Amino acid sequence: MKINRNYLNLTENYLFSTVAAKTRTFQAEHPDKTLIKLSIGDVSRPLPAVVVQAMKRACKEMGQTKTFRGYGPELGYPWLRNAIVDFYHTQMQVELETDEIVVSDGAKSDLSNLLDIFDPTANVVMCDPVYPVYWDTNLMLGRTPQLLPATAENNFLPMPDTSIVADIIYLCNPANPTGVCYDRAQLKRWVDFAREHQAVILYDAAYTCFINDPDLPRSIYEIDGARECAIEICSFSKMAGFTGVRCGYTVVPKALKTMDGVSLNQLWRRRQTTKFNGVSYIVQRGAEAVFTPAGRQAVKQNIDYYRRNVRLICQTLERLQWPYVGGMHSPYVWVRCPAEYDAWQFFDKLLVQAGIVCTPGVGFGSAGKNYIRLTGFNSYTNTRRACRRLLDLSKDKI
Amino acid sequence: MKINRNYLNLTENYLFSTVAAKTRTFQAEHPDKTLIKLSIGDVSRPLPAVVVQAMKRACKEMGQTKTFRGYGPELGYPWLRNAIVDFYHTQMQVELETDEIVVSDGAKSDLSNLLDIFDPTANVVMCDPVYPVYWDTNLMLGRTPQLLPATAENNFLPMPDTSIVADIIYLCNPANPTGVCYDRAQLKRWVDFAREHQAVILYDAAYTCFINDPDLPRSIYEIDGARECAIEICSFSKMAGFTGVRCGYTVVPKALKTMDGVSLNQLWRRRQTTKFNGVSYIVQRGAEAVFTPAGRQAVKQNIDYYRRNVRLICQTLERLQWPYVGGMHSPYVWVRCPAEYDAWQFFDKLLVQAGIVCTPGVGFGSAGKNYIRLTGFNSYTNTRRACRRLLDLSKDKI
Repeated sequence: MKINRNYLNLTENYLFSTVAAKTRTFQAEHPDKTLIKLSIGDVSRPLPAVVVQAMKRACKEMGQTKTFRGYGPELGYPWLRNAIVDFYHTQMQVELETDEIVVSDGAKSDLSNLLDIFDPTANVVMCDPVYPVYWDTNLMLGRTPQLLPATAENNFLPMPDTSIVADIIYLCNPANPTGVCYDRAQLKRWVDFAREHQAVILYDAAYTCFINDPDLPRSIYEIDGARECAIEICSFSKMAGFTGVRCGYTVVPKALKTMDGVSLNQLWRRRQTTKFNGVSYIVQRGAEAVFTPAGRQAVKQNIDYYRRNVRLICQTLERLQWPYVGGMHSPYVWVRCPAEYDAWQFFDKLLVQAGIVCTPGVGFGSAGKNYIRLTGFNSYTNTRRACRRLLDLSKDKI
Repeated sequence: MKINRNYLNLTENYLFSTVAAKTRTFQAEHPDKTLIKLSIGDVSRPLPAVVVQAMKRACKEMGQTKTFRGYGPELGYPWLRNAIVDFYHTQMQVELETDEIVVSDGAKSDLSNLLDIFDPTANVVMCDPVYPVYWDTNLMLGRTPQLLPATAENNFLPMPDTSIVADIIYLCNPANPTGVCYDRAQLKRWVDFAREHQAVILYDAAYTCFINDPDLPRSIYEIDGARECAIEICSFSKMAGFTGVRCGYTVVPKALKTMDGVSLNQLWRRRQTTKFNGVSYIVQRGAEAVFTPAGRQAVKQNIDYYRRNVRLICQTLERLQWPYVGGMHSPYVWVRCPAEYDAWQFFDKLLVQAGIVCTPGVGFGSAGKNYIRLTGFNSYTNTRRACRRLLDLSKDKI
């Protein structure tokens, strides 16, 4: 059997399973202790009522002959794609065409499937630490991506330099797991670099809804020249609580072309019409409702809720004088382990001494070996309780 | 930019767009004529009430903090995978394990994405005519599949022979577009051939719900040895009207291994956990409801409805003495064009003289150049009206 033997080079990432196992063991040994997870990478607030109503209405339509819908357009219903066009126009003053937007079941699928339209021999560059999906999907194609360490020295924001040989550049902004965010000038340098080297930027915009500063770009297309070099991958997951509903979209500008004029927009549309049959009608109706006034209002409330949690975490870290980045424009806070602990040692310490579960940074790449990631996705009550425990823990001298 | 240049070798399949354009033009020129589409490849009956109720309940859960669900298991919720295990056990006496089933957004995605776990140099064989997705997805990898003509000479059921060089064998049973169905003995020959040549059968079982004869196998795993060589791809689309809801599943047995012991089950699970984030919770609750007694009853009623249409079409063809195959275990009827018309000539004749829209067989491969495909997916009233028109047309002498 002629299998893809690149899969045999993949190593299992035991990060989350090890976190879960350690947590379970500790809880079993200390049944009286209430653990608090600041490791949650998933949303916890329910869907906006307007989204639920829209989906229930769609379910009802599907049960009646006159309003039943079978196969939809593979690339997404025009009303949803147009709502996205309007969103870019009104929120970011970015003008897109309906045909430049392709609706999907989420950013993870798109980030993975986009690799289909590139040559397997393409050179790939990405940051370290990084969302493990970028790394694994490239290994599956037999590639070994070049890693750009994100460290305190470069403010966790790697910039292009002459060492980089890239046909594909992954940028996640605001970044997972560090929570840091490139500004306009920095993104402009990446765009210029990509154009100069005929590279394509895969711009993962899953966390833009957390950007707090109107001067920071919320789409790569706010940067001059980006339409000629960048694909933007977006998701309703973090924005509107769609992690279990599954909807996202990808923007491939028509101006994105090879030197000999091949349109990447056409390649991606061909990929999706051939290998995908579109997103559930019910889900697309839910996504459409996110852009209504009531949907936008509810989304803002949810994001503000998580932001308040993150702010509390950051204030606590400042009182503790533990260096950190992120949190300002992101649900993620990237914390330097105090006293030269490594990530797993500090994970154990927080678990055992404070009953707090975090995510060891080393799971996202070796540059994270002395860091942990905390998130604002728990409830406010739990987050506040966890922060008090952190302050108490510090009194015992770490 | 290092794009996948295999995409440039794809030719657009203008079948459905040409059918739509010709139909539109004719209707514009004859606004008084009522056209009847016997070309529909999509279901038209609404979802069973029990499925709608289950999905509405799931929507409601998603709107409340206590019952909200974020990321689900990438491979599908255990309750749905277990319901599928039970279905195989009770309906087909096929014993599967939960881990052998992976839930997805549909058979088209799975049939395409499964190619990821094979080597790009694998040799591929498929029938002609064939579901165009098989062909195009292989061209995207730079492969040129070997085609096995399905003709009157082999009863439209190609069998293995010494000319075949295959690492991957596509079988669609009952077949799209011909509607014919392999029996146990014939499938056994394919299974034996695959095992002898260390090939993997991709068994597209999207239409098994139409099988009418208890002696015909409804799963490839009813055939001895299939667990060592076959992957079965299934869908709720045709079975339960899920074409717009999007849910399917793929069975990769744990016994399916390379000579050196690599498990294809593990490869597929690794592919899906890395590149996919699972199916919408709401959709999975709907799929689960398909297996309830009320769901099964409603599915049977819908299938019976379509079968009645197909039966009427077949009876009409017999009266007309137009040779055809399919229809017995399939929503599809594959009709030989009378009087040596080619497919597009006969399409035009049916459109202009009877106001009936069919699908020219040549769109599924060159072996279909003198055939058309009719389907039982329209309403009974329309199907009956179309059959009367066919009988009238014949009186004029084709």
